[in-house]
Amino acid sequence: MNGAKSLVNSLLQSGVDTCFANPGTSEMHFVAALDQVPGMRCVLGLQENIVTGMADGYFRIARKPAATLLHCGPGLANGMANLHNARRARSGIVNIVGDQATYHRPFDAPLTADTDAMARTVSSWVRTSTRAQDVGGDAAAAVQAANAFPGQVATLILPSDASWNEGGAVAAALPAIGPAPLDPHAVDNAARVLRGGKNALILLAGRGVLGASQALAWRVAQACGADIRADYVTAHVARGRGTLQLERVPYGTDQAIAALARYDHIILVCAKPPVGFFAYPGKPSTQYPAHAQLHVLARPDQDPEAALLALAESLGAPEAPLPDPGPRPEAASGAPTPEGLARTLAALMPEQAIVSDESISYGRGFYPHTHAAPMHDWLHLAGGAIGDGMPVATGAALGAGGKRRVINLQADGSAMYSLQSLWTQGRERLPVTTIILNNRKYNILIGEYQGVGATPGPTAMSMLDLGNPDLKWVSIADGMGVEAARATTMEQCADLMARSFRTDGPFLIELMI
Amino acid sequence: MNGAKSLVNSLLQSGVDTCFANPGTSEMHFVAALDQVPGMRCVLGLQENIVTGMADGYFRIARKPAATLLHCGPGLANGMANLHNARRARSGIVNIVGDQATYHRPFDAPLTADTDAMARTVSSWVRTSTRAQDVGGDAAAAVQAANAFPGQVATLILPSDASWNEGGAVAAALPAIGPAPLDPHAVDNAARVLRGGKNALILLAGRGVLGASQALAWRVAQACGADIRADYVTAHVARGRGTLQLERVPYGTDQAIAALARYDHIILVCAKPPVGFFAYPGKPSTQYPAHAQLHVLARPDQDPEAALLALAESLGAPEAPLPDPGPRPEAASGAPTPEGLARTLAALMPEQAIVSDESISYGRGFYPHTHAAPMHDWLHLAGGAIGDGMPVATGAALGAGGKRRVINLQADGSAMYSLQSLWTQGRERLPVTTIILNNRKYNILIGEYQGVGATPGPTAMSMLDLGNPDLKWVSIADGMGVEAARATTMEQCADLMARSFRTDGPFLIELMI
Repeated sequence: MNGAKSLVNSLLQSGVDTCFANPGTSEMHFVAALDQVPGMRCVLGLQENIVTGMADGYFRIARKPAATLLHCGPGLANGMANLHNARRARSGIVNIVGDQATYHRPFDAPLTADTDAMARTVSSWVRTSTRAQDVGGDAAAAVQAANAFPGQVATLILPSDASWNEGGAVAAALPAIGPAPLDPHAVDNAARVLRGGKNALILLAGRGVLGASQALAWRVAQACGADIRADYVTAHVARGRGTLQLERVPYGTDQAIAALARYDHIILVCAKPPVGFFAYPGKPSTQYPAHAQLHVLARPDQDPEAALLALAESLGAPEAPLPDPGPRPEAASGAPTPEGLARTLAALMPEQAIVSDESISYGRGFYPHTHAAPMHDWLHLAGGAIGDGMPVATGAALGAGGKRRVINLQADGSAMYSLQSLWTQGRERLPVTTIILNNRKYNILIGEYQGVGATPGPTAMSMLDLGNPDLKWVSIADGMGVEAARATTMEQCADLMARSFRTDGPFLIELMI
Repeated sequence: MNGAKSLVNSLLQSGVDTCFANPGTSEMHFVAALDQVPGMRCVLGLQENIVTGMADGYFRIARKPAATLLHCGPGLANGMANLHNARRARSGIVNIVGDQATYHRPFDAPLTADTDAMARTVSSWVRTSTRAQDVGGDAAAAVQAANAFPGQVATLILPSDASWNEGGAVAAALPAIGPAPLDPHAVDNAARVLRGGKNALILLAGRGVLGASQALAWRVAQACGADIRADYVTAHVARGRGTLQLERVPYGTDQAIAALARYDHIILVCAKPPVGFFAYPGKPSTQYPAHAQLHVLARPDQDPEAALLALAESLGAPEAPLPDPGPRPEAASGAPTPEGLARTLAALMPEQAIVSDESISYGRGFYPHTHAAPMHDWLHLAGGAIGDGMPVATGAALGAGGKRRVINLQADGSAMYSLQSLWTQGRERLPVTTIILNNRKYNILIGEYQGVGATPGPTAMSMLDLGNPDLKWVSIADGMGVEAARATTMEQCADLMARSFRTDGPFLIELMI
C-alpha cells in the first residue's frame, strides 16, 4: 500500500476517526486513501482556521483528537491562529500538513515555505515523514503525542512522495502517555499551607475546572476556609446545576489585582501564576500581591483530581455538598443587556448544552446569571487569538456526535474572522445556535484605547468601528446556507432561541446590542 | 515624543502614507499616534489576510510600500499566507506587528508567541524595536528594506513598551536601494546565444513583464528569431493594446513541458528556471528539456529594462513595432464560457483597468481573448496561496487612488478565503467589480484528483464540492454592504459589468458557470 493508505489505516488503528480538512494538490493521494479506506469521517472547512478551530472544539468535548488536513506551509499558516489557541487550551490535535515532494522542495516552487519552522511555533511535537515506509509509524507517534495528557498539538508534515510511494505499513496504536506522577511533597506542602489558616486561594485551570475537581476543591476549601477561583485563561469549565458556582479571575488588570490582593497563598491546580493578558504602562505584569506565596499542587500535565483527592484526604476534609445555585432564572424582556442575555440563556438552554463563548467584552458578566442553568459545558478562548468561537462551536457539535445543543455567544468583530464556519454547520446540519452580538464596533479596543488616556478621534475610530457599512448577519448566514433572524428585544431573542433549540440544524440570531 | 509617534512620523518622512490595519490592544499607542499625527491614510481590514493582501495589491499598482498594522504573533499568522504571496510577488510591504511589552514577554501571557520565527518564514528583513529611541530609525530602515529593488516584505516587530515609552526620535528617509548592477558578461553571453540562431526563448518575469521590457524583448526577438513568453509565476503583466501579445508558460506540467520542448536556450529575464507548481509521480520537477541551456540575463534584483536595452544594442537590433492585436472583441452571448467571459471583459473594460485574477482553473485561457482590450494591468496570484484575489483587488484600487476600475475575476472556493475584503470595498467605496465564478466546487482539485488516476468517490467529493449548501454570493455581498446581482447568461453578465463600470463604488456579479 502507499504511504497515504498506511496513514489513514494507522490513524484509525490509533482511534482517530474524524478528519477536518481543507486539502490541496499535494494531498490528493491522502484524499484518495480516505475514499478507499472506510471509517474516517471527513468534514470540510472553507478556510484552514476553521479546520483547526473545529479540531480544537472537537477535542474539548470528545476528549480524543481528530486529524486535520492542511495544504503546504501557507495552508498551515492560515490555520495557525487557532492552533495557537488549541496549544493554549491544551487540546490534542493530529495536525497533518501535506507538502511538496521531498525531491521537489529544492526547486522552490511557489507554494514552498518553511513549513517546519511555521509548525514549531504552534506545536509541541513536529515530525516530517520523508519515506512511505515511515508514514504509518509516524502517524501512530503523532496520535500518541496529541493524546499525551492533557493534550497537545502534534504536527505531522507529509511530503507528497511519502504519500504516493509504495511501501507503507499500518502501525498499531502506541501506549497512552498519561498524567505525570504527582509530587507527594506538593500535596504535603499544600496541606501545610491550608492548615495554617492564612488567606488562601485555590486557583483552578486546565482539567482542574471540570466537575470532579471542582467538587474536591470545594471539599478542601470548606475544610480550610480557602477561596476557589478559576483562572481567567481556561478553555473548558463545567458549569450549571450540580457544579460549583465558580468565578474566574477578572480580565482587567486592576480588577484582577483587587480580586487577588487579600491572598497570602495561592495554590495552583493546573494554573499558571496569574499575569495580565497585556502589559500597561505603570501597572505590574503579575496580578497577585508581592507577598503572596505560590504553591504548585498540580502542573497542567498532572492529574488535578488525584492531586485534590490526595489533598482532601491529607487534610481529613469531610464530604461537602455543593451549594445550591438557587432557582433557575426567567427569560428577560426589553432591550438587550448582558445580564438579560445571560438570564435568558439560563432559562432556556437545554440539558447538557455546550456554550462556545467568544462574546469578548459583552460577556464578562455572564457567569453569575447562569450558575442555576442546567448542567452545561462552557468553552472559552484560551489563546487570545480572536476567531475561535464559531469553529470551536462547530467542532464541539461534532465532538458530541450531534447529540448536544451548542450555543455560540459570538462578538461580531471576532465572528468576521471565521464566518466560514457557518457553511460547515449548514452542510453537516449541526445543532449550533449562533447568537451574534452585533454592536458594530471593536468595543474591547475602544475600552483599551480609552485606557491609553484619550477619546478616539476620527482616524482611530476608523480602525475600531465596524459600522459603515453595517454588517448584516442575517444575509451573511443566508449566503452560507444557515437560517437566521434578527432580534432587537430580549423577547424576540428568547423566541428565536426556543425555536432553534427545538429544531435539529443550525440557526443564527443577530442580536442588536 | 513616544515611540509610536516617532514611528508614524518616520514612516511619513520615508514616503509611507497608507496603513492597512487590524489593530489590537498592544497597538493602541500606535493607533493613538495615527490620530495625533496627520497624513496617514488608515484602511481597516476585518481579518489580517485581508490587510496583508491589500498591502500587496497596493504596492503592485502604486509601486511604493504601504504599512500594515497587525496584532501579536497570531495576528501575524492570520496574515502570513498573503505575505507569502507578496514575498513571491516581490512586493514591498512595511509589515508592522505590535507585540507584548519586552518585560511582559517572559510571563508567557496567552497571546505570546514566537513572532520573530513566524515573521522570518515570510519576510526578507525582520527587526524588533526594543527601545523607543530606536523605533524611528528602525522604521526608516524597514521602509528602505521594503523598497529595495524590486520590493520585499520587511517586518518590524514593535513591543508595546517601545511604542509607549518617551524618547522617540523622527528619522529621515534612508537612501533607496536600487537594482543591482548589470553583469556585462551576462549581456554578452545572451547576445552570443541569440546570434547563434538556435531555438531560443526569452522568458520574462518580475518587472520584466511590464511595458518597456516587453517592447525591448520584442525588438531583441525580432532581430534574432527568438520566442518570448512570460513565466507562469508572474505577479503583474502589462497587457492589452500597446503591449505585446504575451502568453505564459502553461500551468500543467505536461503542457509546460510540451511548450518548452523545442528550446535549446532559455534566456531568463527576472525569471527562475521553469519548474512545476507541484511534483507528480513519474514526471520531472523541471519543465525545460534536459538539453536546454539556461542563461541569466537579469536576476529579479537587476533592472530588466536596462539589461534588455543593453542586449538590443549589443545585437544592433532595430526598433520593432509591436504587432497589432486585431479588432476589439464583442461581448459574448448565451451560456457562460471562459472564452465568452474573456471576450466580454475585453469588449467592456474601461481604459487603464486593473484585473485581479484569481480565477484558477476557469481562467487559464483568458489571455488570447483579451489581447485586443484597452491597455490594462493584469495581476496574478504569484505564491499559490489561494485567497489573494479579493484583497489584492482592494489594495490595487487604493494604490490607483480610486481612479482606475479594478475587475476581480474570482473563483468561488478561493473567494471564501478572504471574503471579508468586500466590507472594506464597501467602506472605502472602491471601484472594484468582483465577478465570482460560481461553480460550487474546488474544480482544480477535481482535476488534480483525476490526475491521481481515479474518479472521486463520495468521501473525496465531500472535500472537493462546495455545494450543499450552495453559497449565495449575492446574499454574502449584501451582508457586507456591497451591491450584487446574479448572472446566468453572458448577456446578463455584460449588462451588470457595464452598469458597474458606470458607477463609482464596488459591485459583485455572481456568475453561475
